[in-house]
Amino acid sequence: MSSILILNGPNLNLLGTREPEVYGHTTLPQLEADAVAYGAERGHEVQCAQSNFEGGLVELIHGARGARDGIILNAGAYTHTSVALHDAIAGVALPTIELHISNVHARESFRHHSVIARACSGVICGFGVSGYRLAIDAMQSLLDNRP
Amino acid sequence: MSSILILNGPNLNLLGTREPEVYGHTTLPQLEADAVAYGAERGHEVQCAQSNFEGGLVELIHGARGARDGIILNAGAYTHTSVALHDAIAGVALPTIELHISNVHARESFRHHSVIARACSGVICGFGVSGYRLAIDAMQSLLDNRP
Amino acid sequence: MSSILILNGPNLNLLGTREPEVYGHTTLPQLEADAVAYGAERGHEVQCAQSNFEGGLVELIHGARGARDGIILNAGAYTHTSVALHDAIAGVALPTIELHISNVHARESFRHHSVIARACSGVICGFGVSGYRLAIDAMQSLLDNRP
Amino acid sequence: MSSILILNGPNLNLLGTREPEVYGHTTLPQLEADAVAYGAERGHEVQCAQSNFEGGLVELIHGARGARDGIILNAGAYTHTSVALHDAIAGVALPTIELHISNVHARESFRHHSVIARACSGVICGFGVSGYRLAIDAMQSLLDNRP
Amino acid sequence: MSSILILNGPNLNLLGTREPEVYGHTTLPQLEADAVAYGAERGHEVQCAQSNFEGGLVELIHGARGARDGIILNAGAYTHTSVALHDAIAGVALPTIELHISNVHARESFRHHSVIARACSGVICGFGVSGYRLAIDAMQSLLDNRP
Amino acid sequence: MSSILILNGPNLNLLGTREPEVYGHTTLPQLEADAVAYGAERGHEVQCAQSNFEGGLVELIHGARGARDGIILNAGAYTHTSVALHDAIAGVALPTIELHISNVHARESFRHHSVIARACSGVICGFGVSGYRLAIDAMQSLLDNRP
Amino acid sequence: MSSILILNGPNLNLLGTREPEVYGHTTLPQLEADAVAYGAERGHEVQCAQSNFEGGLVELIHGARGARDGIILNAGAYTHTSVALHDAIAGVALPTIELHISNVHARESFRHHSVIARACSGVICGFGVSGYRLAIDAMQSLLDNRP
Amino acid sequence: MSSILILNGPNLNLLGTREPEVYGHTTLPQLEADAVAYGAERGHEVQCAQSNFEGGLVELIHGARGARDGIILNAGAYTHTSVALHDAIAGVALPTIELHISNVHARESFRHHSVIARACSGVICGFGVSGYRLAIDAMQSLLDNRP
Amino acid sequence: MSSILILNGPNLNLLGTREPEVYGHTTLPQLEADAVAYGAERGHEVQCAQSNFEGGLVELIHGARGARDGIILNAGAYTHTSVALHDAIAGVALPTIELHISNVHARESFRHHSVIARACSGVICGFGVSGYRLAIDAMQSLLDNRP
Amino acid sequence: MSSILILNGPNLNLLGTREPEVYGHTTLPQLEADAVAYGAERGHEVQCAQSNFEGGLVELIHGARGARDGIILNAGAYTHTSVALHDAIAGVALPTIELHISNVHARESFRHHSVIARACSGVICGFGVSGYRLAIDAMQSLLDNRP
Amino acid sequence: MSSILILNGPNLNLLGTREPEVYGHTTLPQLEADAVAYGAERGHEVQCAQSNFEGGLVELIHGARGARDGIILNAGAYTHTSVALHDAIAGVALPTIELHISNVHARESFRHHSVIARACSGVICGFGVSGYRLAIDAMQSLLDNRP
Amino acid sequence: MSSILILNGPNLNLLGTREPEVYGHTTLPQLEADAVAYGAERGHEVQCAQSNFEGGLVELIHGARGARDGIILNAGAYTHTSVALHDAIAGVALPTIELHISNVHARESFRHHSVIARACSGVICGFGVSGYRLAIDAMQSLLDNRP
Repeated sequence: MSSILILNGPNLNLLGTREPEVYGHTTLPQLEADAVAYGAERGHEVQCAQSNFEGGLVELIHGARGARDGIILNAGAYTHTSVALHDAIAGVALPTIELHISNVHARESFRHHSVIARACSGVICGFGVSGYRLAIDAMQSLLDNRP
Repeated sequence: MSSILILNGPNLNLLGTREPEVYGHTTLPQLEADAVAYGAERGHEVQCAQSNFEGGLVELIHGARGARDGIILNAGAYTHTSVALHDAIAGVALPTIELHISNVHARESFRHHSVIARACSGVICGFGVSGYRLAIDAMQSLLDNRP
Repeated sequence: MSSILILNGPNLNLLGTREPEVYGHTTLPQLEADAVAYGAERGHEVQCAQSNFEGGLVELIHGARGARDGIILNAGAYTHTSVALHDAIAGVALPTIELHISNVHARESFRHHSVIARACSGVICGFGVSGYRLAIDAMQSLLDNRP
Repeated sequence: MSSILILNGPNLNLLGTREPEVYGHTTLPQLEADAVAYGAERGHEVQCAQSNFEGGLVELIHGARGARDGIILNAGAYTHTSVALHDAIAGVALPTIELHISNVHARESFRHHSVIARACSGVICGFGVSGYRLAIDAMQSLLDNRP
Repeated sequence: MSSILILNGPNLNLLGTREPEVYGHTTLPQLEADAVAYGAERGHEVQCAQSNFEGGLVELIHGARGARDGIILNAGAYTHTSVALHDAIAGVALPTIELHISNVHARESFRHHSVIARACSGVICGFGVSGYRLAIDAMQSLLDNRP
Repeated sequence: MSSILILNGPNLNLLGTREPEVYGHTTLPQLEADAVAYGAERGHEVQCAQSNFEGGLVELIHGARGARDGIILNAGAYTHTSVALHDAIAGVALPTIELHISNVHARESFRHHSVIARACSGVICGFGVSGYRLAIDAMQSLLDNRP
Repeated sequence: MSSILILNGPNLNLLGTREPEVYGHTTLPQLEADAVAYGAERGHEVQCAQSNFEGGLVELIHGARGARDGIILNAGAYTHTSVALHDAIAGVALPTIELHISNVHARESFRHHSVIARACSGVICGFGVSGYRLAIDAMQSLLDNRP
Repeated sequence: MSSILILNGPNLNLLGTREPEVYGHTTLPQLEADAVAYGAERGHEVQCAQSNFEGGLVELIHGARGARDGIILNAGAYTHTSVALHDAIAGVALPTIELHISNVHARESFRHHSVIARACSGVICGFGVSGYRLAIDAMQSLLDNRP
Repeated sequence: MSSILILNGPNLNLLGTREPEVYGHTTLPQLEADAVAYGAERGHEVQCAQSNFEGGLVELIHGARGARDGIILNAGAYTHTSVALHDAIAGVALPTIELHISNVHARESFRHHSVIARACSGVICGFGVSGYRLAIDAMQSLLDNRP
Repeated sequence: MSSILILNGPNLNLLGTREPEVYGHTTLPQLEADAVAYGAERGHEVQCAQSNFEGGLVELIHGARGARDGIILNAGAYTHTSVALHDAIAGVALPTIELHISNVHARESFRHHSVIARACSGVICGFGVSGYRLAIDAMQSLLDNRP
Repeated sequence: MSSILILNGPNLNLLGTREPEVYGHTTLPQLEADAVAYGAERGHEVQCAQSNFEGGLVELIHGARGARDGIILNAGAYTHTSVALHDAIAGVALPTIELHISNVHARESFRHHSVIARACSGVICGFGVSGYRLAIDAMQSLLDNRP
Repeated sequence: MSSILILNGPNLNLLGTREPEVYGHTTLPQLEADAVAYGAERGHEVQCAQSNFEGGLVELIHGARGARDGIILNAGAYTHTSVALHDAIAGVALPTIELHISNVHARESFRHHSVIARACSGVICGFGVSGYRLAIDAMQSLLDNRP
């Protein structure tokens, strides 16, 4: 059984109400409940957290060291600017999946570049809230293939 | 009667004492008191908040949804770097005015670009602390002309 | 009593008929009449001029030296390309407000940069034709705070 | 019968005498007479104008609104720098063809980019003075296919 | 039951033997057999093709129109340079998933940008050959959520 | 009587069915039949070919040397990336017209630059499928004015 | 005896009163009178003109063809933006000297690049109003060394 | 006796355990204790703080005004992105030393540029945790040489 | 005895007839015959191939794995754009020499950068068709010095 | 009487024999003799030196401090790259004229930018070897107008 | 006892007399004497050299190999341009400290980038001539911590 | 019999001892002796020189004019920065081969661009010290094919 942290970043607490044509109608609590249940079916303990603070996300990542097997991170807007998150991911050295609900490459150009991707194991984007389920499966695959 | 949130960002708590040749001698409490009074004369309820935290400003903007009619935002240094603020403004979909005390275009080049402007309704900059009064009038105009 | 020149640049003579979804339905003569009346109420003599010529605007700015107390300049397309206007503003050394009817930062990228802003005292953009009234108030503030 | 304005920009009054290895030996009056005749044969009223002034071209474009069915514009050097012409074309909303006598893409790099192309319907370049005849035919095609 | 095309691009025929420290030891036939089987278990008909030719991939995408429900595309090196693939994807208007075996963002900088992503529905990268299984699940999710 | 090769590049075989709001409803066979007929009326032998392969287009251009008097080339997506096409055009030294159905300058920025234009005689873009007729006339003009 | 045109561009009519710490206290009429006298002593007929209009300068350059032996051009702000002036200088094919009163390279970065220099014979900058006398001598040297 | 604030930024709480091949094995508490002791030997009161929050660092800098004589700041990842820290340093106007444990110039390119350096008095980087002792000596030198 | 593949890319089939002032008068068959003979004298089996297709070159490189000791590659125009060729060279891990007939650095700027050079062992350019003989000798040197 | 140092940089010892179509047929000794004579007629002591070494030029500039009234510097290729020369000129604080024989702005783009211009008083370029005489006159003007 | 080479680059021989508001009033001989004495107190043999020649500095670095334990290098202007110095430092493989008297990051933008930093162990800048004492201490720390 | 100058630039005197994993174990005297012998066998007089000074290399190139038939130049680090070497090569107009021991394109990005290549006849890089023998053969080929 693996323990997975799902971490959502800035403005994702508005999910379901903010720009639903981009992000859909599922709220964050619904999304988190679904992820916990989906993970439980597959034998994973999934825990969820959200912060609008760059420093808050850094510390939630720190807290996963020794406590979790991997991190699924939707860093939202900080994806594109935060060297601190990059360093936090590299610092705790846990398999980390970068996740985006929308296809960021089909949106404004300032969303095309990810500062954190090079510190992550992989990226999943564009599959709506279903992406979180895919990420749980992807994490299992990463953990199964650990050297 | 409209309800307006005036939101000041990083380092603006130093107002009146920090680089007065750039920002003038009015302190933040004086500025806020003046804005409240000026708004009250015009029939607006003005509330003020300040945060040095990007995440703090994001949450103050979230809090305005459903509670305020518009936001006057002096995002200070975050103006030039914060995609998270851009997304928060777009997320709450309230008329928002970007405000700067100094004329940022006549200063260092890293202050010339605003990341948040495209999510705002308009910009006022370079009029010192008088800019806040102008912004209250501009907000009234925006609210009057809502479709 | 102050004397203020309102100067409109290229294509603004089409106001009210050109791309009304961007610029609104007020015509230039209506806008100018409103500005004159609004200024008169506040004790200002407002005079208005328009030119589609970069050189014409340069000379109208020159003509303001010694004759006007300040300039409200909607330089239109020349905002983004004209070093000559920058130099004219710096040359006459009158308080000058850069004004845009639409929020240029939410439009094409070639409208995001202003060549003239660094020579101006401040910027007002995005408030439709109401911006001219705000600019008259802003000019009063600039003139009141002259050293 | 359509009415078409052929508009030539800066330095095109020198045609036939300026750098003939680039622009050929036909003078502007010869070119204009040929275009009028060629148009007449096809049932178009062609009118011609030239200006070395950016503002002059802006106003000639304004004047076409309501009076002409389309514009053939050789904006010369202003092609590469004039946002004002871009806005004038967009403002009058007439089908407009960008035309160049030489193949600008095979010349200096500062001639490779057109500021006005995005506001035009199409581009014809590199066919010498024959390009004007082609543009008249192209305009007919544009007008025939109007929705 | 859905019909899915898995399309592999240049050099992926070398899979399992080329730079195994980057791409692993699974060969392309093994990978394809696994994908077909995995899809079949979930009720999908999966078909596979590979081409080292940009034009070949374009035509394989064309061939999917009307014949497949979606495309999983590992465009390999053409990801970073091919406007033709971008246009082919947009042209057939099928849900398409961009897939990479390695995390391209942690490799050379010329692999960081994808020309085709904006025409795709989503992206999966960095999960080794397991990514193809994830992509089949992701495709199911895309197809289930079609409007 | 001249012999002209009309060459269409990647994805143009989808013409009439792909993104009709951009490219119209005429299919490639219809377009080619019209061009052959239009050319025949004017005494030209027009031959048509299409390839989705960059190398295929290169070889079709090679094949025109000694066999055709000129080439009308809609290189599609390869316009923006193919040095090989540039070199093929320069290598056969036939008058070549770059053609685009849509106005590429009013679309995505990656379509604004042409790699092949400097090797061509001229450019025609933005006139829909009528552009092919214009190009035949333009070719006649180029051939008539050969030194 | 040579005939030389001295041409001053935008804002140079303010000379002597505009930013005297940069441009000195000599007025334009004084400068022109001095240049005429200095030229006369050396057997040159010097004529002077000034325009704030880009198109005006273009036409003054055109007018020099056949009437003058050379042009001394202080194009002011248009130096940095005007392709039209570049083309006018190249079009009349007269020896032309680019002149600046101040050392533009020691000022703002947007003054470092000259669009017109490549069409000119030489450049003189940074010698204050004395530069005009130097330019008259330089023109004599250019004319003496004509092939 | 001087009072010095040593301020460490994001992820530096992981010191000694995070990427020890880059940052060494000394933990933050050990480092801080050593700095306090080293400072005390030289007659300085050294106080230490750490925050993972950009806003937290801003407020710790504010708190130093009037309370400390100088700041030694290892801003970690915020070094490369934070205009807010730049402004905080400029706002309190205390001598501030930018410090890095590793030689950032020999690492990834996104670590080569410092946003805060221009507001600091000096920079020390690449000497491991010994850099903090050097910085205390450097601060003494800065304070001794105050005008 | 070594076995060497000489691979020529797009447009090199035109050798001897295309732009002879750049590429000389030797035809491709002559060049290949000379290389085979030159190699034979030195005890090498030289085989030659040419393709105008990027994918064709990729597959010819693949085919060399296990069959040849090294590759001499004149990738022509694909040198400057083809990540696929870069990956093919890296994938087969044979010593590969990048060759150009002309000195590409003295030609158009788009020929100055090679995408494939970093995957090759060395580069020879500018020596006309003699470069192929030099490359055979260079290959011998590479093979002699294999670790 | 003033004392002027004429300093020529790398490759200028080849003058008269190197690329005479660019630099003319006058040799360096002839040029220097002419400058000395021309200066003497005007009451200046002119001394000349040449070095192909960046460091040599730096030291010749140092040597002028206290010994010369001004420097005429043709830094040749170092103009475009040498911060050391910039600093040497700023360090000795003598009026310095940047001189070029050819019009560098009409040549290769790497000759368009001068690193040293901002430290100089003025620039003269494009007048052939006559430029040295003009520079002597210009130096006299600079020295006459010293504050 | 360690042996340290202090190496000063171009224009540093002017120290104390050149731009004292930037570099202070200490002369180079005074600085060197102080460094020797300060080093001696700490048991180091400090030797000093200065050269205005890039090649001279390269050779002084070469000379340190086998003769010194480390190098303190104030490369002055060559810091920003010299790949040769970068290679010399990497070539001799001695611990090297890059030193600047002023805070180069608060000066002109061409001083912000160091070409040599990646080959050095660390950087000290902005502490005036005291930086040399700090660098001696820093070198001791580097030497003490050698693996 | 031809006379060839082999010229080695900065840091190449360290050959054989500096970074042998990059440059190999052959020393410069060994390399030079081998080149002289290899040349002699082929009937060439080979002479060798090395300088760490940019100016020194410039003068060695000057010295070859009239004395040598061609130059083989390994300019080392100056390859990437020296306009002076470019001009020296162009000035003496001798066939010159740019040579690098390592494949510079597979190293740091600042080694990818050559400033001097456009003035050279050809480039050889990546073949270790064997490159010098290849360059002697290449020079023979260049000299044999002189027009």
